[in-house]
Amino acid sequence: MSRPSEDELIARYFAPLATAPGADGLTDDAAVLPAGAGDLVVTKDMLVAGVHFFPDDPPDLVARKALRVNLSDLAAKGARPAGFLLALGLPADWTEAFLEAFTRGLATDIERFGCPLYGGDTVKMPGPVTRPGPLTLSVTAFGRTGRTVRRNGAEPGDLIVVSGTIGDGALGLKARLAEREPSLQPDWLKLLAPEHRAALAGRYLLPEPRTGLADAVSAHASAAMDISDGLAGDLAKLMKVSGVAGQVRLADIPVSAAVRAARDLDTSLVTTMLTGGDDYEILATVPPGALAAFEAAGRAAGVAVAVIGQVTAGDGLAIIDAAGQPLSLGAGRFEHF
Amino acid sequence: MSRPSEDELIARYFAPLATAPGADGLTDDAAVLPAGAGDLVVTKDMLVAGVHFFPDDPPDLVARKALRVNLSDLAAKGARPAGFLLALGLPADWTEAFLEAFTRGLATDIERFGCPLYGGDTVKMPGPVTRPGPLTLSVTAFGRTGRTVRRNGAEPGDLIVVSGTIGDGALGLKARLAEREPSLQPDWLKLLAPEHRAALAGRYLLPEPRTGLADAVSAHASAAMDISDGLAGDLAKLMKVSGVAGQVRLADIPVSAAVRAARDLDTSLVTTMLTGGDDYEILATVPPGALAAFEAAGRAAGVAVAVIGQVTAGDGLAIIDAAGQPLSLGAGRFEHF
Repeated sequence: MSRPSEDELIARYFAPLATAPGADGLTDDAAVLPAGAGDLVVTKDMLVAGVHFFPDDPPDLVARKALRVNLSDLAAKGARPAGFLLALGLPADWTEAFLEAFTRGLATDIERFGCPLYGGDTVKMPGPVTRPGPLTLSVTAFGRTGRTVRRNGAEPGDLIVVSGTIGDGALGLKARLAEREPSLQPDWLKLLAPEHRAALAGRYLLPEPRTGLADAVSAHASAAMDISDGLAGDLAKLMKVSGVAGQVRLADIPVSAAVRAARDLDTSLVTTMLTGGDDYEILATVPPGALAAFEAAGRAAGVAVAVIGQVTAGDGLAIIDAAGQPLSLGAGRFEHF
Repeated sequence: MSRPSEDELIARYFAPLATAPGADGLTDDAAVLPAGAGDLVVTKDMLVAGVHFFPDDPPDLVARKALRVNLSDLAAKGARPAGFLLALGLPADWTEAFLEAFTRGLATDIERFGCPLYGGDTVKMPGPVTRPGPLTLSVTAFGRTGRTVRRNGAEPGDLIVVSGTIGDGALGLKARLAEREPSLQPDWLKLLAPEHRAALAGRYLLPEPRTGLADAVSAHASAAMDISDGLAGDLAKLMKVSGVAGQVRLADIPVSAAVRAARDLDTSLVTTMLTGGDDYEILATVPPGALAAFEAAGRAAGVAVAVIGQVTAGDGLAIIDAAGQPLSLGAGRFEHF
């Protein structure tokens, strides 16, 4: 069975996604980004099968997640999506069915987030079909904002806010691992209701970038980042680079029904929830006077926003439990690396 | 021996390269590109050990080549470098010595081409140390130009011009292959003078992006692209997308002393030279009235520019040999894919 050449592959699967004028239908080596007002924000991630996703994850979800983790970075800087580039390293055993599903997934999110494909590269990973090099993706995403929000602007007195719910991605990864290797299934997962399991796994597979909050972040946040490596570690990082301290009340951290049910089954999961990563929620600090406007923007965008603590002078991050004691999270920071 | 965490690795090796204000010393998830006049041109390549370079190529040259192939794309669009992002997938057996050499190479070309690092990502490739996933790089480069030159603007009557010399990279790859596997060494390589061998291998390892010609391309070319997959195939592509035909005289294609010497030893190498790829020279079409200005710009930049043929109406590309006969190159197009 003959497979398409690189040119045929681009024409068949990727050119239909590249409808922006500057992309020239992917017939050129480079693209022209449209001029626009405000800052041009750029971010780039690399995702590798076996590290950032499972080789047998659904291809459409792999594609969408690769785009979404970058859109999450943009939203946390206050930037709306403007377009992206994709480099794709295909394993030797790639199939057209894979590419069809992969690009179908991309098309869904290109439409949903108004984020056109501008170009990229397609290469073959080395190695025999029996042990091919891993599927590898790199997305570069571009966004526009009137004001880019950095990590380093938090001030004592600011409120610490997060979007959505925390911990679903980290517990979802455990659910996905157990699906693949049932012998490793922990007790809490055996007891968890099927709809909660499915919700957690789904959230791991397909995060929800908070693009709807981008304008509010740009307008109101003093500092912001997206939570990809765990709330505890990411917040500690933001505090450190801002030169401030933070205090968070565990009880105020928003959790989904699925995470609440899992924690009721195993209280030690609180550590996973706070350090496990893959949340792709927005973590921001907001001056008290801007909180009402930020919350209103969240309501308008249909994204929940919760105040979980406050910035203070000094350094360090304390997460206070129901008994008023600071949690000890150990090393406590997930690294994709 | 403990190795640095991702954060330490970034702080130690990459942050010193990210001196542009919008890069924020790589302490954030995203960067802000400086505003500028004209088009913002973007291009992205992925390079994988064992496909685009040898796993034991010198790390500093791997880094520089990865950046340079993207700068070559920019120059061919008429764009000066403005910055880049780097995603780096490190094999499980990476060493600090590797990273030190890799980033030293990058620093050299960042300085030389005035192209600062704005950000990126660092991930670990999967797999055991005995058979680690391959080193994988993806560079996204940004450039600025007053006028982006596309592939599709060639008009009948335009002259076909190339920069530098053609075929060095393709023969250089053969020299590199023979260094690694002497039993595969072809006769012509055994007979070739050592200085010619070294020149060819060096050109394969470290191409020379024609950034000095970017302004001239922008000002004078009707169409342009960089030659990465072989002059014959790339020119045929440019003709096709422009809806024109082209005629090239083989004798007018500029070659280095090393390529000339190799061809004298084996006349069949003309096919390799025309189809082998890795030239990273600029291929452009220039209206006759603009040729003198284009050539003058080349002289000012210290880059040779040669007229090799002419655009005509119709379709197809003919390369005419010394006897006045069109060459037959067979399938004749190198694909990295």
